[in-house]
Amino acid sequence: MSHITIKYLAKELNLSPAAISKALRDSHEISDATKKRVRDLADKLNYIPNPYAGSLRHRKSKTIAVVLPEVADSFFSEAINGIESIAIAKNYHVLLYLTHESLQREEVILKEFQSGRVDGILMSISAETSSAHHIQSLISKEMPVVLFDRIDDGVETTKITTDDYESGYKAADHLIKSGCKRICFLSISETLAITRKRKKGCDQAIKDHGLMPSMCDVLVNAKEKNKTKEAIIQLLTQNNRPDGIIASVEKLSIEVYLACQELGLLIPDDLQVIGFSNLNSVSLLNPALTTITQPAFDMGVKAAMLLINSIEKRNNTLENELIIFPSEFNIRSSTK
Amino acid sequence: MSHITIKYLAKELNLSPAAISKALRDSHEISDATKKRVRDLADKLNYIPNPYAGSLRHRKSKTIAVVLPEVADSFFSEAINGIESIAIAKNYHVLLYLTHESLQREEVILKEFQSGRVDGILMSISAETSSAHHIQSLISKEMPVVLFDRIDDGVETTKITTDDYESGYKAADHLIKSGCKRICFLSISETLAITRKRKKGCDQAIKDHGLMPSMCDVLVNAKEKNKTKEAIIQLLTQNNRPDGIIASVEKLSIEVYLACQELGLLIPDDLQVIGFSNLNSVSLLNPALTTITQPAFDMGVKAAMLLINSIEKRNNTLENELIIFPSEFNIRSSTK
Repeated sequence: MSHITIKYLAKELNLSPAAISKALRDSHEISDATKKRVRDLADKLNYIPNPYAGSLRHRKSKTIAVVLPEVADSFFSEAINGIESIAIAKNYHVLLYLTHESLQREEVILKEFQSGRVDGILMSISAETSSAHHIQSLISKEMPVVLFDRIDDGVETTKITTDDYESGYKAADHLIKSGCKRICFLSISETLAITRKRKKGCDQAIKDHGLMPSMCDVLVNAKEKNKTKEAIIQLLTQNNRPDGIIASVEKLSIEVYLACQELGLLIPDDLQVIGFSNLNSVSLLNPALTTITQPAFDMGVKAAMLLINSIEKRNNTLENELIIFPSEFNIRSSTK
Repeated sequence: MSHITIKYLAKELNLSPAAISKALRDSHEISDATKKRVRDLADKLNYIPNPYAGSLRHRKSKTIAVVLPEVADSFFSEAINGIESIAIAKNYHVLLYLTHESLQREEVILKEFQSGRVDGILMSISAETSSAHHIQSLISKEMPVVLFDRIDDGVETTKITTDDYESGYKAADHLIKSGCKRICFLSISETLAITRKRKKGCDQAIKDHGLMPSMCDVLVNAKEKNKTKEAIIQLLTQNNRPDGIIASVEKLSIEVYLACQELGLLIPDDLQVIGFSNLNSVSLLNPALTTITQPAFDMGVKAAMLLINSIEKRNNTLENELIIFPSEFNIRSSTK
C-alpha cells in the first residue's frame, strides 16, 4: 500500500525526519511556525502514523489477543461482543485465536505472544489444558493475562468465572426433585476447573438427597465432534441408562437432543435434560430446554476492562483474584 | 514485557546489530562460523524477532482483518472458522472487527487500515452500507480486499456469495406449492445485494405462479434488535396477514418463532416459515425449521485463500469477479 512517510514529509519541507517526528509529537524543541508547516502538510497528504513504528518506540501495539477454544458457541460469541464493546471504546484492536480445544495449538499461539505483538491477553483455556505452565510463563514475563470462564485456578492473575459449583448443585437438585434417580454428568474434560466444579456440585446434591453416587458420568472428546452423538447413543442404550442428563457445555445439549431424536426417546418423559447454554433459541427447542445461562457479555466486558486498565497503567495491576458472576437457572419443558 | 533484542545479541557477541540481523537472515555476507555463534546465542536466550520491526522493513504485518456485522450468528461464526483454518496454516494473524450493522462504524474501522496495520481485508458489509466508496478507496490504495456473502456488486475486487436469487425463488416456489397465497419477505435492508437478490427471486416465483405481487414485505432495523419481534407481531396481527414468511437472515427466523409463540399462532398450520440459517439446532426447533443453508465454512476458506495468495504474490492479483457457491435447501416441518 502506498503510504506517506515521515521521510517523505521531511524531504518536502527540507527538514530532518527527527524534526518532523518531534513536530508531530508537539515537542518543545520545535518552533510553533515549523510545527504548523508540518501539521498542514501532514493533514493535506492525509499522513497517518505507522502503527508499528509507534509500537517500536512505545512498546505498545494497542492490540489485545482473545484466545478461545471455539467461536461457534453462543457463550463465546456473546463474550466476544462484550470484549469488543470495550476494545472499540478504548481504541484497541482485537486479535482472535482459536485453539479448537487443543493444548498444543494453545501453546503455539501463546509462544508467539512473546514477540510483543499484543499488549495483553484474554483467554479461556482448551479442554485439554491440564497444566498452565505456558500461561504462567507469559505472566512471569510481565504480559498481562486475564482468564475467563475456562480458567486454571493455579494461575496467578485475575480470573473471571461463574458460580459453577452452585450451578451444578442446583441442576442435580432440580433433576432429583423432578424424579430422577440416575443422573449423568456429561462433560468434555476431567481437568477443567469449570467442569470439575460443576460436577462436584452435582455429586454433592446427589449425596445430600441420599442417592447412590452417579455411576454413568460420560466424558466425550471435545476435539472429535462427530463422535459425540455416538457416545451419547451408547450411554442411552446401555442397561440402567440415566433418566437425567446435565450437559456441562452448550454443544452437548444439542447432541443429547439429536441422540434422543434418533433413538425415539421422549424428553422429558424418558429422559430429563438440563444444559449450560446461551442460545437465544433454547425456548424454541422441542421441548424447550431447561438451562443454566452465564452472563457471557458482562463477563467479556469485565475481562476486557480489567485487562486494558492494567495495560494503560503501564505496570501489571492485575490482582491474583477470582471474580465470580452468578448464573441464571431457567426451568423449561425438558425437565418435569 | 522484557525482551531479547538484536542490540543485546550484538553487545554479547561483540558484533554490530546489522551483522546480527544479517546472520539471522542467513546472509552470504556473514561467515558460517559467525552465523553459528549468533544462532546458538539466539536459541539459548530464546530470541524471537520483533514482528513490528519486521513489518517496518518488509511492510508486511502477516495480519489480516475480518470485518463483520456481528459474530453471534452461525453463518459468521462458521465463516470465521473457515478463515481461521487458512490463517493458521499460512501463519497469519486475524484481527476481528464488528460493525454491529453500522455504516459509520464500518467507515471508521476501514479508515484505520490506511495505517498499514493489516496486509489485507475480508469483509461482509453492514445492513446500512448502501455505498462502497470507503471500500473502493482502500482498494485504490492497493489494499487487497475480498468481500463475501454481504457483498457490494460495484466494488472492483473478488466477491464470494451464494446463489441468492435462486434461493429466494426456491423458497417462495415451495411456499406457494405448499398452499401459501400471501408471502412476506422479511428483511433487514433494501440495499444489500443479498437481500435484493433473494427478494427478486421470491417476487419472480410469485409472478410465475400468477399470484398478486406481495404487499406485506417487512423491513426491520437491524440495529434495533429488541424491536424486531414487535414489528413481526404487528405484521401477524394485521388484516390480511401473511400465511408464509421468508426470513432472509438467521436472527429473523428465531424472532418469527418467538412472535408466533407469543400470539399462539401454530407453525405451519397458521403460518409457514422458511429461514436462511446455519444453526445446527434448526432440526430441533418446534417445529423443525425449513432452511436455506449457505456453505459458510467453505466460503470463509475460499475468501481467506484468495486474499492470502494475493498478499503473498506482492501484487494485487484479485480479479474483479463474482464467485458463487450453491446453497442447500432443506425442507422440514415449518412448511407443509
